[in-house]
Amino acid sequence: MEEKEISQAVIGRLPRYFRYLGELKDEGIERVSSQELSDIMQVTASQIRQDLNNFGGFGQQGYGYNVGYLYEEIGKILGLDKEHNLIIIGAGHLGQALVNYMNFERRGFIFRGVFDNNPDIYGKQIRGIPVRPMQEMERFVRENNIDIAVLTIPKNSAVEVAEQLVSYGIKGIWNFAHVDLHVPKEIQVENVHLSDSLMKLSYNLSSHNT
Amino acid sequence: MEEKEISQAVIGRLPRYFRYLGELKDEGIERVSSQELSDIMQVTASQIRQDLNNFGGFGQQGYGYNVGYLYEEIGKILGLDKEHNLIIIGAGHLGQALVNYMNFERRGFIFRGVFDNNPDIYGKQIRGIPVRPMQEMERFVRENNIDIAVLTIPKNSAVEVAEQLVSYGIKGIWNFAHVDLHVPKEIQVENVHLSDSLMKLSYNLSSHNT
Repeated sequence: MEEKEISQAVIGRLPRYFRYLGELKDEGIERVSSQELSDIMQVTASQIRQDLNNFGGFGQQGYGYNVGYLYEEIGKILGLDKEHNLIIIGAGHLGQALVNYMNFERRGFIFRGVFDNNPDIYGKQIRGIPVRPMQEMERFVRENNIDIAVLTIPKNSAVEVAEQLVSYGIKGIWNFAHVDLHVPKEIQVENVHLSDSLMKLSYNLSSHNT
Repeated sequence: MEEKEISQAVIGRLPRYFRYLGELKDEGIERVSSQELSDIMQVTASQIRQDLNNFGGFGQQGYGYNVGYLYEEIGKILGLDKEHNLIIIGAGHLGQALVNYMNFERRGFIFRGVFDNNPDIYGKQIRGIPVRPMQEMERFVRENNIDIAVLTIPKNSAVEVAEQLVSYGIKGIWNFAHVDLHVPKEIQVENVHLSDSLMKLSYNLSSHNT
């Protein structure tokens, strides 16, 4: 399917729409106007209409949006109607926290394997998943149809491990290592640079409190 | 000090400049041109010049940038020359992972207290910091000059806890709860919505692999 390129800014807002629509749905609300959505989400109604028009609209003049339908459609756009098989590289505190976070699984992101290079924890179970040595990674990725790798390893090894993963057929990398990866552009990388986020907070604190 | 408002997009790029300059510095490199910086950072040289011009430039025609000086100046702009006192609310896996992450402390972000509402873990030490009951939070914030609170609690309690923290004098919130907080606009909030990030990766995977 050929799609027009949607800007990353719009895509970045979709999960937020999804979250708010999910909450409205849980409250039993069946329809919502772009103005009401605008009030609770604190973005302009025109931005909402523009964003959603990228995917064909969904709204009806005088009716607004059907909450359940829009929720489901945005879910599909986000690829949440498919299951993703994940492995995580790095079974430290952060890796364990991510594996233990149930919400990812509810959205179809299933952790299948955990890898580490520390022999002391091989076989240790994290939410029922045993920690495996890195040497088993290639075979595991190929045999278990893994599409996403999560990197929670130090930055000095992340670049090399990312290259290996790509050669094994990984399509997406969720990167928590504090480094920019160098992978072919058809590989999707989503970075979570926690230090950068904290520095941004620090900047905003300094510039508003001096 | 009155400063002109810098766009959040520019601010969002500063930590990345800081990271790359730190690496150059560690490699013993003393000066760098905007073109060289452009090559390693994969942004245009003109963007680099524009971004840095927001803060007064730093570069010299024909010389480029002094790595050590620029690194330090960006650090100051980011507020990294001051120490920040942090508490974390929520001593689950993610909270523990953040407290255990040494790099934050190296940048001047010091975890002073950990709070949770689970009596079973009161007094438990996380990297030497005992878990305290939420009831002690107000006094602790006021007595220890805490400026940043990190929220790693479920979304249903996060909105209320954030309001309490603001009333105790907290100036910045690093929010990992999957909800938008409602706080006065002088309070700085930096959100890390992990599920949103994963959904964005999922979208990019779907739209590039269909």
